[in-house]
Amino acid sequence: MTHAPAPPADARLIIAASEADANLFYATRFLAPDPFVFLHHGEETILLASDLEVDRARAQAQVSQVLALRTYEERAKQAGAERPGIVDALLQLLQERQVRSLLVPGSFPLEHADTLRARGLTVTASSEPFFEARLTKSPKEIEAIRQAMRRTEAALDVAIQTIRDAEERDGLLWWQGSILTSEAVKRIIARQLLDEGLIAQHTIVACADQACDPHHEGSGPLVPGQAIILDLFPRDASSRYYGDITRTVVKGPASEALRRIYDAVLAAQACALERIRDGAEGEAIHLEVQQSFRARGYQTGEVKGRMQGFFHGTGHGLGLEVHELPRISKLKSTLRSGHVVTVEPGLYYPGVGGVRIEDVVVVTDTGCRNLASYPKLLEV
Amino acid sequence: MTHAPAPPADARLIIAASEADANLFYATRFLAPDPFVFLHHGEETILLASDLEVDRARAQAQVSQVLALRTYEERAKQAGAERPGIVDALLQLLQERQVRSLLVPGSFPLEHADTLRARGLTVTASSEPFFEARLTKSPKEIEAIRQAMRRTEAALDVAIQTIRDAEERDGLLWWQGSILTSEAVKRIIARQLLDEGLIAQHTIVACADQACDPHHEGSGPLVPGQAIILDLFPRDASSRYYGDITRTVVKGPASEALRRIYDAVLAAQACALERIRDGAEGEAIHLEVQQSFRARGYQTGEVKGRMQGFFHGTGHGLGLEVHELPRISKLKSTLRSGHVVTVEPGLYYPGVGGVRIEDVVVVTDTGCRNLASYPKLLEV
Repeated sequence: MTHAPAPPADARLIIAASEADANLFYATRFLAPDPFVFLHHGEETILLASDLEVDRARAQAQVSQVLALRTYEERAKQAGAERPGIVDALLQLLQERQVRSLLVPGSFPLEHADTLRARGLTVTASSEPFFEARLTKSPKEIEAIRQAMRRTEAALDVAIQTIRDAEERDGLLWWQGSILTSEAVKRIIARQLLDEGLIAQHTIVACADQACDPHHEGSGPLVPGQAIILDLFPRDASSRYYGDITRTVVKGPASEALRRIYDAVLAAQACALERIRDGAEGEAIHLEVQQSFRARGYQTGEVKGRMQGFFHGTGHGLGLEVHELPRISKLKSTLRSGHVVTVEPGLYYPGVGGVRIEDVVVVTDTGCRNLASYPKLLEV
Repeated sequence: MTHAPAPPADARLIIAASEADANLFYATRFLAPDPFVFLHHGEETILLASDLEVDRARAQAQVSQVLALRTYEERAKQAGAERPGIVDALLQLLQERQVRSLLVPGSFPLEHADTLRARGLTVTASSEPFFEARLTKSPKEIEAIRQAMRRTEAALDVAIQTIRDAEERDGLLWWQGSILTSEAVKRIIARQLLDEGLIAQHTIVACADQACDPHHEGSGPLVPGQAIILDLFPRDASSRYYGDITRTVVKGPASEALRRIYDAVLAAQACALERIRDGAEGEAIHLEVQQSFRARGYQTGEVKGRMQGFFHGTGHGLGLEVHELPRISKLKSTLRSGHVVTVEPGLYYPGVGGVRIEDVVVVTDTGCRNLASYPKLLEV
């Protein structure tokens, strides 16, 4: 799909819960679990907040003005709305401000858009990014991601140390008197992250054929001699920024085939890292990675009804969302200084194993700065 | 806002990431971090899944068919789309199935709706609930919420026990050699929940005037003689259902004024619990709670630029979302057998304290069944 540039609008509007909407949190730095209105009109940024949130919004939101939703609901009632909702109240505010046209995020709820349009407003969905500036991280944002990465690496280290310390017996790994499982390692990771103020969800500790499905979270016993993918992407509960790192390890000696896959992924990652700089095209880097795998003989496609090879993107933006713009994938995305992206090629061959290696880098004018420093070693 | 009933449509459509969209997870029981297509057409439920998710979707999704997004992207390319996106692929599927009109959730992304409409499709936003059946919990869902509640109460107990065990010294609380803070108690709660497989976010442990802002999460030292609101609403990482409970405690003797507020909230909650049954109107119950506070002389409104009294809803549905339908509030909502709702009146008076008491109940034909059993005692 191609998008024409959005036509100029009188104001920008978001209606969302900032706990779930990164654009809204970015615009206000105010966290609330229920939807509220954000209007950017002229020089002013305005919130409409419910009785429940209005005091906290006034104290915390980084906007020009916090208005009481109730005031505008009451006006809507006087204007004939029997049970005024958030959009009825908003319509009163738009009337007061003589706003006739609105630019909204692509994710804007259709229900609200249709109500506004029915009242004569022009509502245009912006393609992503709604806030272009969100892609370019400020020094403060980069520091928040760096802090998240540092703590994520500490948790990764505890997990890998556990696998290293485990004892091999009867084809299984034993640790502190129990069979070492994905679940146990994920719990160790989650606890360590929690102590550092990070919330981990959907952490991946996937072994052998499970690791060949890149989003399989892993379950059951970890086994020696098989690749274990550890992919951690927790959120800092205080800054709201994410960390993201992946390493692949094997307890004990790896097969020759697995070692070759590992080297291919490492080489592909190095090739991508080498090409990242201000002005580089994400798609071109992704094609290079694909080419580097093909050059080593690693094919991608469906075999016996299951995908194998390299069948995900090379990287994605990281910030207030774990997957955000820009992309290093088949999508069109130009990298710019200050963008923060993951670089995470992988190869997945059922029967041999899955390997993914992921760092996070800040794009610079001349290259990139790696925020990950955890060693890349297959055998532990 | 009132909504006319949605006109009949050829199919129902959701495009979302099921990690963030409860309707989509409810419809598929398949969890994915990136948006995918769900189409309910005739007797069939169909997913369009990317290469990255297609194998896992086939193994896990509770739908009739999982189709490869790639197949439809390729058809879109043949049909002239230069860089086919998810909607281009969907359009091919809709054409194949001769679908001309779609019913989508109110939250459906405007960008996608406008693209579909531009291609001649009729797209109608359904008002909530998109799946009426989601409000009525099955025995399995009730059991999942009951399990979440049981573990949430266990964490609440550890927290309250910590406050009880703390020593009063120089107007502060001391525990294990440190000043006891909101942060410390929240960490104890989060760890305990994590060990039980629940993810806690935004847990509230708010003391004194902080507790007078119902969404203040709390920070700094807890003090004796002041109300501490503990509000826990973690999600079971495995079932995806939420627990939700609130208790208010004071370490040491409470003031007479605070005790009276506590009694008023307890009486209001009892009054609401008494009225809940199949067919009861949420709004009527909410008005009763408001009336019960007024009858005891507790006024609600803005004082010195700050809300005080009772200025939030009495309750909300609980399930795959922490706030879902039905509501016990000023909104129109009829309670039905099998609905699961919180009942959580509160009173907030800066200088005196904030009190909220919250249980979770299953609505039955003749009343309700309380899933919370934790004692309600002010002084600990």
